[in-house]
This record gives sequence, C-alpha cells and structure tokens, in this order.
Amino acid sequence: MTVRDVERDAMHRALALAVNGPAGFNPQVGAVILEPDGRILSEGWHRGAGTPHAEVDALSRLSPGEAQGATAVVTLEPCNHTGRTGPCAQALLAAGVSRVLYAVDDPGVVSAGGADTLRKAGVEVEAGVLGDEGRELLSSWLTVQRLGRPHVTVKWAQSLDGRAAASDGTSQWITGPAARQDVHRRRAAADAIVVGTGTVLADDPSLTARDPDGALRADQPRPVVIGERPTPAGAAVRRHPREPLFFSSRDLPGVLNDLRREGVQRVFVEGGPTLASAFVRAGLVDEVLAYVAPALLGGPRLALGDIGVATIDAALRLTLSSVERLGDDLLLVAHPTTAPSPANAKDD
Amino acid sequence: MTVRDVERDAMHRALALAVNGPAGFNPQVGAVILEPDGRILSEGWHRGAGTPHAEVDALSRLSPGEAQGATAVVTLEPCNHTGRTGPCAQALLAAGVSRVLYAVDDPGVVSAGGADTLRKAGVEVEAGVLGDEGRELLSSWLTVQRLGRPHVTVKWAQSLDGRAAASDGTSQWITGPAARQDVHRRRAAADAIVVGTGTVLADDPSLTARDPDGALRADQPRPVVIGERPTPAGAAVRRHPREPLFFSSRDLPGVLNDLRREGVQRVFVEGGPTLASAFVRAGLVDEVLAYVAPALLGGPRLALGDIGVATIDAALRLTLSSVERLGDDLLLVAHPTTAPSPANAKDD
Repeated sequence: MTVRDVERDAMHRALALAVNGPAGFNPQVGAVILEPDGRILSEGWHRGAGTPHAEVDALSRLSPGEAQGATAVVTLEPCNHTGRTGPCAQALLAAGVSRVLYAVDDPGVVSAGGADTLRKAGVEVEAGVLGDEGRELLSSWLTVQRLGRPHVTVKWAQSLDGRAAASDGTSQWITGPAARQDVHRRRAAADAIVVGTGTVLADDPSLTARDPDGALRADQPRPVVIGERPTPAGAAVRRHPREPLFFSSRDLPGVLNDLRREGVQRVFVEGGPTLASAFVRAGLVDEVLAYVAPALLGGPRLALGDIGVATIDAALRLTLSSVERLGDDLLLVAHPTTAPSPANAKDD
Repeated sequence: MTVRDVERDAMHRALALAVNGPAGFNPQVGAVILEPDGRILSEGWHRGAGTPHAEVDALSRLSPGEAQGATAVVTLEPCNHTGRTGPCAQALLAAGVSRVLYAVDDPGVVSAGGADTLRKAGVEVEAGVLGDEGRELLSSWLTVQRLGRPHVTVKWAQSLDGRAAASDGTSQWITGPAARQDVHRRRAAADAIVVGTGTVLADDPSLTARDPDGALRADQPRPVVIGERPTPAGAAVRRHPREPLFFSSRDLPGVLNDLRREGVQRVFVEGGPTLASAFVRAGLVDEVLAYVAPALLGGPRLALGDIGVATIDAALRLTLSSVERLGDDLLLVAHPTTAPSPANAKDD
C-alpha cells in the first residue's frame, strides 16, 4: 500500500489549508477528501476551539453518500474522543470513507487512537505522510501537548568567537540590517518575547516587532520581563502596544506555565546572556537561533555563560536544521539533538 | 577590446598547468600560447627557481617565427627584470607576440612593469583575466611578496558558543571525523604547523598530516613549537618525520621571519587559544578556519581569548569566503576584511 502522487499533492494542499485557521490552544489542521480516482471532492480546515475539526468541516460540504469509498487526507490524526465536537474517526466511518492518510500522530492521551479505531473498522490508514512538514506546522502546539509548556526559541547574536559585545559592553551592531530584520519577522510570529531585567536596564529595548521602515507590525508578541530588579517607570517596554508581564521569579518552568495559561504557545527568548544561559541550563530550549557575525571580538562578554556542562560528553549537542546567509552574517537554526523531555521541563 | 571565450578557456588551462610546478620561493605560473584563431600553439609552466619562466618555457617549444602575431595567456604578469632568467616581457616581444593576457599583477618592486613594457612596445595587454582564481592559486606566494612573511592560517575547533573545551578541559571530540579529516588534508598543504607549548603539554599532539586510516601523508609540514616552557623529551612532536623547530620567543613577526628564511610560505597555526589569540592580536592572520560544532558548552575554556579589541567599532571584521558542512559540523573559512598590511606585520 503506497501513497500516490495525487494523495501527496492533497496533503500539501491540506497543510496549506491548515494555516487558514488560527494558531492558538487548538492545532491548525487541514483536510482534503479525494474520490478514488484522485479528484478533490471537498476541502476543510479547523477554525478554532469549539468549531468543527478539519475533516468534519470537509465532510460537511458533501451530500449524504458522496464520501462513500473516498480517501480522507488530514494533517493530524483524526481524533478519537468526544470533546466540544464529536470524534472525527466516527464521522469518517459514518461517511463511508475507506482510506485515511494523515501527517502527524495525535499526541493527546485522550484524543489519540483514531487511527486504530479506523483500522479496526476496516479502513486503510497511512500515517506520517509528509510528517516532517506536518510537525513543522504544529511545532509549538505539539510542544505544548507533549511537554505542557510553550515552545521556546532562544535567540542571540554573537561574533564568530561567541561574544555578544566588546569588552566595553558596546554591541551595536554586531550583526547587520538583514539579520536584525529577520529577528523582527520572527518576533512577530511569537506569542511572547522574553528578556531579563539586565537587558532592560542595559539596552532599554522596545521589544516590538517592526517593519524595515520602523513601523509596528500587525502582530505584536506580548513583552515579558524576568528578573528581580525593578523595571524603570520610563522603560521603553512599558510603552509596548501590549501590556508587559513582569516576573520577579527565577523559576523558569513556573514562568512558562503561567505564560501557557495566558495562551502563549510560542516564546521568543531574546536575552541577555544570563537569561539565555538559564533557559539552556534548565533544558527549556526547543530551538536555538544564533545570528553569527563574521567578526572576532575576544574579551569577557559572552553570548552564553555557564550552562552547567562540566565535561565534553555532557555538551548540549544540537542538530542544525538550517544555515542561512543574511547579508554578511549567518543565521544558524538548531534544535537540541535530544529533545527536551517532560522531566527536563520540570527541572530548574 | 574584450577577452574572448577561447582566451578565458586558455587561462583556465594555464592555471591548471601552473600547479605542475613546485610551490616554494618562486610562484607557480602557467602559460598558453594561442594562434590568432584561438588554436593552442604551445603550453608551459615554471618548474622552480633557476628554470625558465612559464611563458619562456611555452615559447621554447615553438619554431622561430611561429609565435609571430600570437596571443600569450599567462597566470602572472610577465616579469620585467633580469634575474637568473631573462625578462619575460622581452622574450615575448622578441617572439613577435602581439597580445598578452594575464591574471595577477606582479607584486615585486623589481620584477613588476612587464605589462607597461609590453604596452609601450605596441602589444595589446589585458590584466586581471580570472584574477580571483589566479590570486587564490598564488595566495601564499603573494603574501610573502607583499608582506615579507609567510601566509598565516589560524585554525581552531569550537562549539557554537565559542568554546574550545568543556569546563574540565576535555575537548575530544568537539568536532566529528569529517572535520578532523579536513584538518589533516589542509595540514598537508602547509609548510609548517605551529602550536604553543601549552598545547604540547596538554594534548601531546603528533602534528603529522595523516590519512583517514592513520597512515602518514606524503607531504608533512614542519612542526613548530612556540613558547617558553620546554617540550618534554618524550613528546610526540619529537618523533615527527620532520625535525621540529622550537622558538622560546613570543616575538611572532620574528618567528615568521625566521620561518620564511627556512623556506616556509604557508603557516598553519593550530593552537591553542593563547597562541591563536596572539596571532590575531598581532594582526598576523590571513585566513581563519573555524570548525564549528553544533553544540553548546558554556564555561571558561574559550577558543579565542583577549585579542585587544576594546569596543565594537574595533572588532576584527572578517569576510566569509565559504561555509561548508562537514558531517554534523560547519567549516567557516574567512579572511580579515581589511587585509593585514606590512605595517601590521611588524607590530607585535
């Protein structure tokens, strides 16, 4: 049983449909219903909590009996539980669908098992079709499901030799305009942007996501300041379009838990070195963005401080997912080779 | 007056011929003589000090009068002086060549001016044809000519965050086998491999260039140890196939000067961090090879220490000439954006 080209095309289409839905507590999911000959019968996507799931949305556009013998192509395993909506596995069976392909396994304890239910009822099921693309789309949602905390990106800019600033503390600009623009674009895709009080006191950043011309972008992450020192009344972050959150705690898992309850799924940790190192040390990093300037600085101002690694075998190994030139600089995107586990997530 | 495709092809051929000659005090040079219709009349290359220059070698393969009206394609500007061989500019004129193309200007005070001599005699001259390729081929020779010292490559392996070792000093292996193999290949292309006594005492390296199976390569750079502490009688470097040179001086320009007098044109500085930083601080780096492992180590063992940069505007800016994946690792090849000057070369 192999996946046909038309089915793979349909999964690409379903992934594109998924992003029509809102990113939030619920996953972005898309679905395409195919006739046995590969013609598209209908399409659907999930429009957010409390609305029909993608496959039910797609089925709802068909006449009774029209999906008999059809193939359903869904980006996420059809759910098996009855929440605010009925279980999708049952809806597919009721519609007479005879073949189901999906990209990503449902990680939920309660909702998983849809594929098994379908198989037991005699439906052909293919899992993991374009699984990488599906997991990429759902990375922050999957992190929340798997670890019970938001997805954490830690970003820093450094010279090739790992410095965040020159000996006198000056750091504007290590990296060039293309790198800084990329940061703003990625900021806008996060739900919260997190800095330490040291960075607020030293740099007074606005923590807004801006266009190259300086205009505010439509999407603004919530600014979050962590640390025990008070943020001055006149600090730029207090003029952010979204109300800042202040945590005087060093309990990073606790902070992330609070952020998750505020609806934050994607956290962008911007620094400085002390906070970045604390996230790394706590095993709370899902993605590293290192903007590397081709320059040497030497000196004591490191982009990353102590991360609790004593010996080479304990190095935090990363997997490079991309290396990109941005103007004169490099952007390295990497993920811990051993993914954070729920146990790590509870450590401090 | 434009360069025709056949002439460009001939320059590629001349560059390939050049590497038949030995790299040493004299430059590797290749030459191709073309008929006016682009057909190759003869080829030549320089076989080392005291032997005919490339263009004379190529002309010597022709009958008298055969080069009348021909085009000479040479990788280096024809010389203008009479050394152990006659001036090539005169030889080209005597042969009746009417057009000369070359890649790289002769940087010599005495030998330069061949192009002017040819132009004044009515010959068409095109300079800088495949100039980048020509300078790449002659990079170490040009450095010696321009700065009066060997070409210096400083190599180090680091974690992404700029560490050369974990806190306890362990560093085997930050980078993987593909990166280490690349180091051995590049070692073999150097005339001398330079380390500090700290590295000898800590790691006891053999400083040989080896094949992946551990066998010694045919080309072995001369091992050089710099520093005031004595190298133990049993140190591996003392068993190197080439006799090691020991310098108890910290005067790096002086060391390079001595190495040049020993015939060294290409120096490969392998560490450790103290010596690498000293070369950078002294402005004695022509090329940086940074093998970057996608790993985080934190802690105090930096690949590069103080390099005398106090403020961001004084950063040593590099130009990345390549970014290459070697297994899991990255190799960044870079050059100082402002090339070392003879003045810098004399500073310490």
